[in-house]
Amino acid sequence: MDIEKLTKEKYHLIDGEMNAVFNGNIPNLHDAIQYHMETGGKRLRSILAITTYEALGGRDEKILPFAAACEVLHNWFLVHDDIEDADRVRRDKPAVWVKYGLAHGVNVGDYMAQKVFELVMRSKLYGVDDATTIKLLNAMVTTSVKTSEGQTMDINMRKGGTEKDYMNMVMSKTGHYLTVTMVGAAILAGREELVDMLIEFGRNIGPAFQITDDVLDLTEGKGRGEIGRDIKEGKRSILIIHCLGKCMPQEKKIISDILGKTPEDTTGGDVEMVVALLKKYGSIEYAKNKAEQMQRDAKAIIKKLPPELHELMEFFADYLVNRRK
Amino acid sequence: MDIEKLTKEKYHLIDGEMNAVFNGNIPNLHDAIQYHMETGGKRLRSILAITTYEALGGRDEKILPFAAACEVLHNWFLVHDDIEDADRVRRDKPAVWVKYGLAHGVNVGDYMAQKVFELVMRSKLYGVDDATTIKLLNAMVTTSVKTSEGQTMDINMRKGGTEKDYMNMVMSKTGHYLTVTMVGAAILAGREELVDMLIEFGRNIGPAFQITDDVLDLTEGKGRGEIGRDIKEGKRSILIIHCLGKCMPQEKKIISDILGKTPEDTTGGDVEMVVALLKKYGSIEYAKNKAEQMQRDAKAIIKKLPPELHELMEFFADYLVNRRK
Repeated sequence: MDIEKLTKEKYHLIDGEMNAVFNGNIPNLHDAIQYHMETGGKRLRSILAITTYEALGGRDEKILPFAAACEVLHNWFLVHDDIEDADRVRRDKPAVWVKYGLAHGVNVGDYMAQKVFELVMRSKLYGVDDATTIKLLNAMVTTSVKTSEGQTMDINMRKGGTEKDYMNMVMSKTGHYLTVTMVGAAILAGREELVDMLIEFGRNIGPAFQITDDVLDLTEGKGRGEIGRDIKEGKRSILIIHCLGKCMPQEKKIISDILGKTPEDTTGGDVEMVVALLKKYGSIEYAKNKAEQMQRDAKAIIKKLPPELHELMEFFADYLVNRRK
Repeated sequence: MDIEKLTKEKYHLIDGEMNAVFNGNIPNLHDAIQYHMETGGKRLRSILAITTYEALGGRDEKILPFAAACEVLHNWFLVHDDIEDADRVRRDKPAVWVKYGLAHGVNVGDYMAQKVFELVMRSKLYGVDDATTIKLLNAMVTTSVKTSEGQTMDINMRKGGTEKDYMNMVMSKTGHYLTVTMVGAAILAGREELVDMLIEFGRNIGPAFQITDDVLDLTEGKGRGEIGRDIKEGKRSILIIHCLGKCMPQEKKIISDILGKTPEDTTGGDVEMVVALLKKYGSIEYAKNKAEQMQRDAKAIIKKLPPELHELMEFFADYLVNRRK
């Protein structure tokens, strides 16, 4: 699957849907959304929705509003996540709340959240019946509710937690969210019997993606302008949790003290110190292995799904976990 | 209409619906919602939805999920508004973001926003058909989108604006929001022909309410622990706009300088100075007259609506504008 080629082919369809709901010109709202949405987004989520729908036999454009809604859902989360994590940089540019101020940052995200539902309800324009639209809306609400619950757990974990807490958090935060695209496609293709299995796939590939992301933060950064940002934010990633369970009491104190500092007070030396301890106790390897194991589990689930989905889902599973290794 | 009596009678029904969707126990999420919802809320919005539905002949409980959704919509806005306005006190208690931190504050509001839609979709459990549920969802999205647009304009107006800008802002921010309760009731009662007129009523009573609120901020405060909070926040209320249009250049500079200060830097003396100028130029009277004019316009619209709604809407129009004069 050539994601760049597909993006070029479908980009205007997705953006056409988004433009239909973001069609105002109120300063610090519509310009802020455009600023955020244009910042290098690959429209991966909407492409996944469309290709899944087509693989399941969809030959019309009924999927477009839902596909665009998935894109807006993702970007709404990013706008608010940056506030919640005090991240000032997104995709190597100032985050929305930094550029437009905190008040607009919160409000812009809220507006986008509403547009997710407005977009799904546009499905009617493509001939989707009301009962199916309600199913799509339910899938969307379930996803955003689970993701917000996971986000709470993530913020709570700044104060500490076990690997079990971490896994619970990451399953909530990413388990539904990455595959809601495919769930919507299955509903629209009249293949609701696939939904549970797709969610099960998501509950494996989501954490695999997140753990990979946690590893990447230490090796090449996540487009937030620096390496080790998670350490500065005091995030209890699976790497940190593993290391804290293995290291000596005095090392544990060092790590906890560094994670407890504000991002501004955490020095480059602090980050290096934590990375050295993660390496010493094999925590990076541990996390990589865990991500690979969950990727394998996700791939085992693919085999239980209809063959027409295999290539697409294999691609997606590889793309999420391997792309930046 | 005895709002206290009705609240006592219906409170458990509304809260039953809300408890059904806020039924988790994730720390800093469900406790935060409970903390916020319990802080002296009168459940006015849900009572209005129920009484409107009953006045239009509704004899079942189909309105309950929508009524509860209106309550959650209102409270979600309050949680995020306090962040956007840097208000630390809500109903004489610490605001959610102050008590639970900014990250949770943003996330709690997002969660509540999702639950608005989850609640509306619970209407099915009371026998509401899919087509009607979609209509209710559309009414809700239209309302929240308009309110967010108005909120953008409100934040923008901190840098200045005309009375026309103010009226545009306040119509967007409050025009749909206060009467979505009645709109939902009309839809569920099969009286969709009333919707446009109810919105027209809202576009008059909403601004009347907001202008009254702006006056109250100067005379007795809005439960935010102080008088003249809007001046500290630099809000360009209709009073300020009126005064700036009348006063001498040096007075204009004094007002602009005080509004330009941060809330922390604005002294009690600053607030008194602005209030003195508002009085000198009759801006408080002007605002009161404007609110009363719009209240009269709203009441003129009531007369065009079916007689069974008159008592209820007269009460509501008086309650919003006169209650704390």
